[in-house]
Amino acid sequence: MRDIISALDLSREDFLSLFHLSDEILKGKKIEVKDKIISVAFFEPSTRTALSFTTAGEKLGAKIIGFSSTEGTSVAKGENLADTIRMLENYSDCIIIRHKFDGAAKFASEISDKPIINAGDGKHEHPTQTLIDLYTVYKTFGEIDNLTFGILGDLRYARTVNSLLRGLTRFKPKIVYLISPPTLSARKEILKDLNYEIKELNNPYDIISDLDVLYITRIQKERFADEMEYEKVKESYKIDENLVNKMKKESIILHPLPRVNEIDRKIDSTPQAKYFYQASLAVPIRMALLYSVLGEQ
Amino acid sequence: MRDIISALDLSREDFLSLFHLSDEILKGKKIEVKDKIISVAFFEPSTRTALSFTTAGEKLGAKIIGFSSTEGTSVAKGENLADTIRMLENYSDCIIIRHKFDGAAKFASEISDKPIINAGDGKHEHPTQTLIDLYTVYKTFGEIDNLTFGILGDLRYARTVNSLLRGLTRFKPKIVYLISPPTLSARKEILKDLNYEIKELNNPYDIISDLDVLYITRIQKERFADEMEYEKVKESYKIDENLVNKMKKESIILHPLPRVNEIDRKIDSTPQAKYFYQASLAVPIRMALLYSVLGEQ
Amino acid sequence: MRDIISALDLSREDFLSLFHLSDEILKGKKIEVKDKIISVAFFEPSTRTALSFTTAGEKLGAKIIGFSSTEGTSVAKGENLADTIRMLENYSDCIIIRHKFDGAAKFASEISDKPIINAGDGKHEHPTQTLIDLYTVYKTFGEIDNLTFGILGDLRYARTVNSLLRGLTRFKPKIVYLISPPTLSARKEILKDLNYEIKELNNPYDIISDLDVLYITRIQKERFADEMEYEKVKESYKIDENLVNKMKKESIILHPLPRVNEIDRKIDSTPQAKYFYQASLAVPIRMALLYSVLGEQ
Repeated sequence: MRDIISALDLSREDFLSLFHLSDEILKGKKIEVKDKIISVAFFEPSTRTALSFTTAGEKLGAKIIGFSSTEGTSVAKGENLADTIRMLENYSDCIIIRHKFDGAAKFASEISDKPIINAGDGKHEHPTQTLIDLYTVYKTFGEIDNLTFGILGDLRYARTVNSLLRGLTRFKPKIVYLISPPTLSARKEILKDLNYEIKELNNPYDIISDLDVLYITRIQKERFADEMEYEKVKESYKIDENLVNKMKKESIILHPLPRVNEIDRKIDSTPQAKYFYQASLAVPIRMALLYSVLGEQ
Repeated sequence: MRDIISALDLSREDFLSLFHLSDEILKGKKIEVKDKIISVAFFEPSTRTALSFTTAGEKLGAKIIGFSSTEGTSVAKGENLADTIRMLENYSDCIIIRHKFDGAAKFASEISDKPIINAGDGKHEHPTQTLIDLYTVYKTFGEIDNLTFGILGDLRYARTVNSLLRGLTRFKPKIVYLISPPTLSARKEILKDLNYEIKELNNPYDIISDLDVLYITRIQKERFADEMEYEKVKESYKIDENLVNKMKKESIILHPLPRVNEIDRKIDSTPQAKYFYQASLAVPIRMALLYSVLGEQ
Repeated sequence: MRDIISALDLSREDFLSLFHLSDEILKGKKIEVKDKIISVAFFEPSTRTALSFTTAGEKLGAKIIGFSSTEGTSVAKGENLADTIRMLENYSDCIIIRHKFDGAAKFASEISDKPIINAGDGKHEHPTQTLIDLYTVYKTFGEIDNLTFGILGDLRYARTVNSLLRGLTRFKPKIVYLISPPTLSARKEILKDLNYEIKELNNPYDIISDLDVLYITRIQKERFADEMEYEKVKESYKIDENLVNKMKKESIILHPLPRVNEIDRKIDSTPQAKYFYQASLAVPIRMALLYSVLGEQ
């Protein structure tokens, strides 16, 4: 395994072998990539992704370098991305990159001979979040095939959704419902290459009782020019008891986090709420990924 | 030992056993908490506290993760503290938290099953600073009982003072003089539960020659609405040669640092100036604390 | 070896022994300074210098603490540099300091008993960059004596130039051409103590074909009051194919990086372009330096 730019860079076998390795890590297996330096290069701020990758790297015995924003970096002095990547390539064995521009990770992979892991590039992709998402489904249901998914919220600007939809092409979901306001519907260029049945709709109540997995995405204020528009959409897709009461008992609710108001806190204590469990899987699955990427050098 | 939210979470025995362990560390004893991850979660900036905890953790062989301000964290994206704490709990074995809100550390301890160490919460408490303060007194005098303390400066908004006053309830000070301008006098809710004699006054000259320990707190500009008011108070409580010349030869001056202008730099070279020595004890005593907290998991 | 404040703190023997140790590191020699804490104290932001020192320290098995800007440090609360240095001295075995004021590193060395390494102080010096620069020349030509140097760009405000000119006094360059616009000519107080032939000129074309080493410095916008003045100078000293085509085949182009527009990207693929190779030597030579400084304590 080398660069991980898109969820499509992972085959079904890759997903399953990473799940199995992560299972063993959770059972206490010790794996190491000693004497490796990992660059955590976050040109756009983050907490969860940066900290969970850092934790994963530290647990593997690797050394972590990097930055958590461009403020005060040579980028702020006017350096271009190519030169910054060349610098990181000199210092480290692997570069985990988060950038606000679509395609930044791909560009970095063309510059660098060292493996690049895309930790989120603009509105494009966030493939390691998909690893966490599908691993959570796998651990809950023992499989990913033959399940009914509903993806709700911002399907237009959410990189996690793009990666999830592409990651699901490695499996055989029964159907994937895409639930969003018309202004935030999924991008056609993503949908055209999917190899499973999808259905787009606006109202979650139409299909909520059929779902095995309800995946929520944060509707990001940054994406809206108009504050009012944001407030309206934010409220109309809030997950509350009315909705969850209509879900199957064994169904699950996932969210990449952080959440703002899109899930009522009352829901946290329901059996369907699996988003904190999902978050707890970030470190072992990212350990498995880093081990696979750095082990094969 | 589990959560350390208030100085009252430490018994007399806790204080003394931490002092003894720190003494052994200073004598070269090697202690470790390998394979532990420590979150240094500073929602409010700091240097000394963050760096000394980080150094203490590194010397113990632990791995350190975290952030030094909320800027660029998921908090900035609107995530609430509870969700952020749940995230850190997933990644680490212990959370050291600094936050601008009173009670933030207590709140975090109610969310997290992992030990929480309060590294300063608003105007409430800063118990690990009290560990340093009392350890310095202990190493200088061999005891803490039967000494005369004077605490001077901002007694109203200084969390270090609240924790020191509460920590002193575990010992038997002869008397504690509380010296401040009327506008910055200590809070009644702190004073009402103290089990030793206190005396409030405005002028340090009235009792300076009686003191064994003079504890200075920085009068923080942030606490004043009115710049003029700040300048006036700042100057009126400046420690200079006139004051120090009236102190007992074997008495000591402590300060949590950083200092701005409240201690004349001429004082640094006097025998009473112990604030840099005090600062040098931050790492060993915090190593002892982290070892006690993480060792018992 | 103790404090490294100026390139003049390194003798010819120091340079050569560090080059030899770095050569061995590049050949795979394992060296360690386990159980040492290194402070990377960057009061002024940087990426390359901070990350390469951090990487060097991590590869040596040392622990790294510090900060990458004064924002949110006790300095922002009004603490003076002396007290901040005293704090770092308490926590660490060596302090690498970057500061915007000329002389800050020297001042720190007067405060601290621990070794101070100047990682750039205002417009004064940046001696460890000179180590990288001269090591690159050494590895390319096998020597530094008897070579013809051209230093082009901002010779007035570039600390890298001051250190390079002083570092070259430890060797016997044939001649050093100083090429800059009149407003950015080298400082007389630097030139007066040089022990080799120099020649100042404005137009690189006059001597470009004679050069063995062309050293470019970034013309920093920060240094100009007038944006227009900056744009004019920036463009007039841009390195392009016209210039490089006139250089000797075996000559080399060096640049401390980051570059903005002063080198046309077309040049990156010419045989003379050695600035990325130069950057790749930062980690091994800084490992050698840290080992020499920390090993002798």
